[in-house]
Amino acid sequence: MPKAGRLHVVLVRSRNPLNIGAAARAISNFGFSNLRLVNPYRVAFREARSAVGASEILATAREYKSVADAVADCSLVVGTTSVRHRELQQPLKTPAASAPLIRKRLQASDVALLFGSEKTGLSSDDLSHCNWLLRIPTIGNISMNLGQAVAVCLYELARGKESGGASQKIRHATSEETERLTKLLLSALDDSGYVKPGSQALTEQKLRKLLKRLQMSSDDAAVLQGMARQINWKLNRI
Amino acid sequence: MPKAGRLHVVLVRSRNPLNIGAAARAISNFGFSNLRLVNPYRVAFREARSAVGASEILATAREYKSVADAVADCSLVVGTTSVRHRELQQPLKTPAASAPLIRKRLQASDVALLFGSEKTGLSSDDLSHCNWLLRIPTIGNISMNLGQAVAVCLYELARGKESGGASQKIRHATSEETERLTKLLLSALDDSGYVKPGSQALTEQKLRKLLKRLQMSSDDAAVLQGMARQINWKLNRI
Repeated sequence: MPKAGRLHVVLVRSRNPLNIGAAARAISNFGFSNLRLVNPYRVAFREARSAVGASEILATAREYKSVADAVADCSLVVGTTSVRHRELQQPLKTPAASAPLIRKRLQASDVALLFGSEKTGLSSDDLSHCNWLLRIPTIGNISMNLGQAVAVCLYELARGKESGGASQKIRHATSEETERLTKLLLSALDDSGYVKPGSQALTEQKLRKLLKRLQMSSDDAAVLQGMARQINWKLNRI
Repeated sequence: MPKAGRLHVVLVRSRNPLNIGAAARAISNFGFSNLRLVNPYRVAFREARSAVGASEILATAREYKSVADAVADCSLVVGTTSVRHRELQQPLKTPAASAPLIRKRLQASDVALLFGSEKTGLSSDDLSHCNWLLRIPTIGNISMNLGQAVAVCLYELARGKESGGASQKIRHATSEETERLTKLLLSALDDSGYVKPGSQALTEQKLRKLLKRLQMSSDDAAVLQGMARQINWKLNRI
């Protein structure tokens, strides 16, 4: 897969050095190269790095303060979840259904694959940054081990030798571009009285999820930003 | 998979309790039930069993003195290897090619899937008990972590149950729903001074095309309509 360098495995709040190491090993095993860590437990990251055989992957892993920062340059953000029936409000796909979509996107832009912490998974706010969610079909109530989940996802991604040459030339909006639109619309909604007192954070999440689902192009995001700016300008003159 | 009880994951000379535990967890995650251990390092097995959350799988795992004993009741024995080009003298298959063959055999008889020790893998003698070998396609010289290898193999075996790429059923917005949103947004843009004099028709077309491209769901269209209505209400109070 020639564009493997565009995939970013993002571990959010990982606390176990063994899992960070296992994720790095799977990234290497399946020919990928990028690991990003959002607020890793400091000691865990240090331990993982100093482990015997700690790879190039760990040496070049980058740390981020927030999910928003970690996915800012990605046009597709896929969150992993072990939850079957949550009111996720986001499309849920199997690894087999996800892989071709991710591979196709990797031809032209960067993709983030998010994994939550061992204990709690991805939070509702983390999930709001995702375009859609991936769930490995498992049985029973025990969630998968983090390192194993990373391995299964990357195995599935690496298995296809799809050329992907037939993909459309749409430049998809980066997370940063979608985020800018989220903030502009939120401001308009706030000024219009749409946002109920105390529900600002919830409305923001809801709006972000909705816009992420639309998977708009970079051009469309720019047009919508222009519209939202004009509406904001008018609302502020009231 | 109704015949999942006929699959036996056999760990040969495992030395790491974490890997034994990880294998058990993967067996449980993917709906299988049988773990067999050939000459496990005693301390490792005891530690794995006493681990928090040690499952039913570990409680019922059986120990064997030799590979021959462990696979005696199986009609098909598949060995896993990380070796690409050895004079294996045995057929080598990918997980994807192996899975249908193993699933078919499970309909009628017991199957053993062998994993070697973390350090040395399966010995030449171990391999001699195998009908054929399975190799997970990886890149580079670092072999896969044992727990991750078990997870990938069982994931591939269990995937046969998936109804292809079963994604969620999303009810897409009808043209009527999108059109309603188009009109509402257009009205807000008009009131905000976004629409240049004489360009009403063109802006409407542009906006309609954009919204159509987004291929939103019916639910998302409803939410966006609600937002647009509120903004319109506010703008009209000016």
